[in-house]
Amino acid sequence: MSPSRKPREHDLLEKIRRKLQRTRFHPARHPQLRVAIGDDAAVWRPRSGYEAILTCDWFLAGTHFLPDRHPPHSVAAKCLARAISDIAAMGGEPRCFLLSLALPAKRAGDWLEKFLSGLRATASTLNCPIAGGDTTRSNQILINITVLGECKRGRAVLRSGARPGDAIFVTGRLGEAEYGLRLIKPGTKMHTRDLRLRKHLFPEPRLVAGSWLAQRGLATAMMDLSDGLSTDLPRLCKASNVGARLEGSKLPCVLIAKKDRTLNLDPTQLALHGGDDYELLFTVSPKNLKRIPKRIRALPLTRIGEIASNRQLLVERPNGIAEELKNQGWDPFQ
Amino acid sequence: MSPSRKPREHDLLEKIRRKLQRTRFHPARHPQLRVAIGDDAAVWRPRSGYEAILTCDWFLAGTHFLPDRHPPHSVAAKCLARAISDIAAMGGEPRCFLLSLALPAKRAGDWLEKFLSGLRATASTLNCPIAGGDTTRSNQILINITVLGECKRGRAVLRSGARPGDAIFVTGRLGEAEYGLRLIKPGTKMHTRDLRLRKHLFPEPRLVAGSWLAQRGLATAMMDLSDGLSTDLPRLCKASNVGARLEGSKLPCVLIAKKDRTLNLDPTQLALHGGDDYELLFTVSPKNLKRIPKRIRALPLTRIGEIASNRQLLVERPNGIAEELKNQGWDPFQ
Repeated sequence: MSPSRKPREHDLLEKIRRKLQRTRFHPARHPQLRVAIGDDAAVWRPRSGYEAILTCDWFLAGTHFLPDRHPPHSVAAKCLARAISDIAAMGGEPRCFLLSLALPAKRAGDWLEKFLSGLRATASTLNCPIAGGDTTRSNQILINITVLGECKRGRAVLRSGARPGDAIFVTGRLGEAEYGLRLIKPGTKMHTRDLRLRKHLFPEPRLVAGSWLAQRGLATAMMDLSDGLSTDLPRLCKASNVGARLEGSKLPCVLIAKKDRTLNLDPTQLALHGGDDYELLFTVSPKNLKRIPKRIRALPLTRIGEIASNRQLLVERPNGIAEELKNQGWDPFQ
Repeated sequence: MSPSRKPREHDLLEKIRRKLQRTRFHPARHPQLRVAIGDDAAVWRPRSGYEAILTCDWFLAGTHFLPDRHPPHSVAAKCLARAISDIAAMGGEPRCFLLSLALPAKRAGDWLEKFLSGLRATASTLNCPIAGGDTTRSNQILINITVLGECKRGRAVLRSGARPGDAIFVTGRLGEAEYGLRLIKPGTKMHTRDLRLRKHLFPEPRLVAGSWLAQRGLATAMMDLSDGLSTDLPRLCKASNVGARLEGSKLPCVLIAKKDRTLNLDPTQLALHGGDDYELLFTVSPKNLKRIPKRIRALPLTRIGEIASNRQLLVERPNGIAEELKNQGWDPFQ
């Protein structure tokens, strides 16, 4: 469709269907998905002995991404990955997603084409076919992704199960997405293959680690780090009615490239307050500590502190003095 | 929260949780909903022998409603009802919904309070508790509703099952929502209790009729009328690879009040092209015609035409001449 012609809603749906509902997602490969795009709703057959996990996530131009800076395929990859990250955080596996997409007419041509290619690639990598959605017109690009996942009955890991004495772990390195974000601030050119930008542009939901922990019942509580450790850890602690003491020196902080030393980025601050990492934060009972490996596949697991019975949130500095952990993560309203 | 204070995302979530997750939706009353608002995702336990139905729907300020004209409780009622209408259109029953809400800070006070009250009332009437969602900031009010429903395995009614010779039916009267929309055009005052506006402001998903037909296997194809008969009937016909011939004189058209005669509204045109009615359009095999009642509860069912084998869409005028049915329903991109 040329951007000069007014698109119709029908054209958009056809484009989405053609691009996303191809052989890779043939019903025979996804027998649980009985009806996908094209009817009033999707029909999905639950697997016996499993529970469904449901989540949805905004991804809005201006708030979550900048259409003139972020390439459409990275917008696609990120909107789907961050929604699926909530399934990883429960220890589940994604089964299908719905795409709600509102676009200005001028984005219905080339931009949409590249966006759908990116979405298709990510959906394929994460083994999560499209099941349906809704499209409409708007002045800005608006995206909302709903994901349906599954986990074995009773195995979903909640935020509320952390107990005093449990060890606190995170996957991967923290602050990497924030580091990337700082680098793409106005005036700098963006190279999507720049490894320093990878986590900001193409975050990876920690599905393997999440379901590994859930299937073995090893995580007493779990969530994904979307708004930064200093915002998300208090949420886990509040849900579990506990406090926490972090060891600042143990944080697996982002590695800053030599050439960026002049930017004066503090890796610990990035690790504590940077958002968008989509690493997992989880707690483990002392009796199970030996069962936690150093890595799951190539992904490191790092013990960063301990759950406390009082409701305080503290970070122990290298000098041994503990300070209050101040909530400085991302809040769209701030 | 006073509108003068900047809201935090956390405050919004708490407000939604307090308002919507009350005793009416206590887990004991909705045992399938294992985890609702407050974790990374909702956990929902499927009912044995049933399939899940999944749908999502945009409801955007400026495109679907006008925040300065439509009262917040009608915005709430309509966004949920129209999403649930897709579940009715498959013959299913709603089980839970996710609310994605993006707001400017100035709407986080009084407007939000009234919106949530309206949402709670509608969710309660339709027996569909909130299971989660996502909130963020935006310049305009953006709403996206995901609904999860259920129907007995294999009983979902698709758009693709209509066969030549099947009779075409609709529920209720058509054009009523469009009639209401015409009355609230600029310069007129809106009274939310005005019965002429009821269907525009407070549409009702036809859940009872939809599941009645689905459970008995009586509808060969079914969908809801969201964009108008002249837009939606072609969709059903295309999915079923058939055509249709409507009898114009049989259409259950909106009744125009005497005082509005001066507006020169043509009831047949409103019935053919008016959107937002959320009535059901369904087809019935000749052998089952006797089993279709005149009403399901108080809702009339009207036979309006017949499915044809050629791909034409015709409307027979009272003079017996058949004209082509032109697609003039609602398209957000037009």
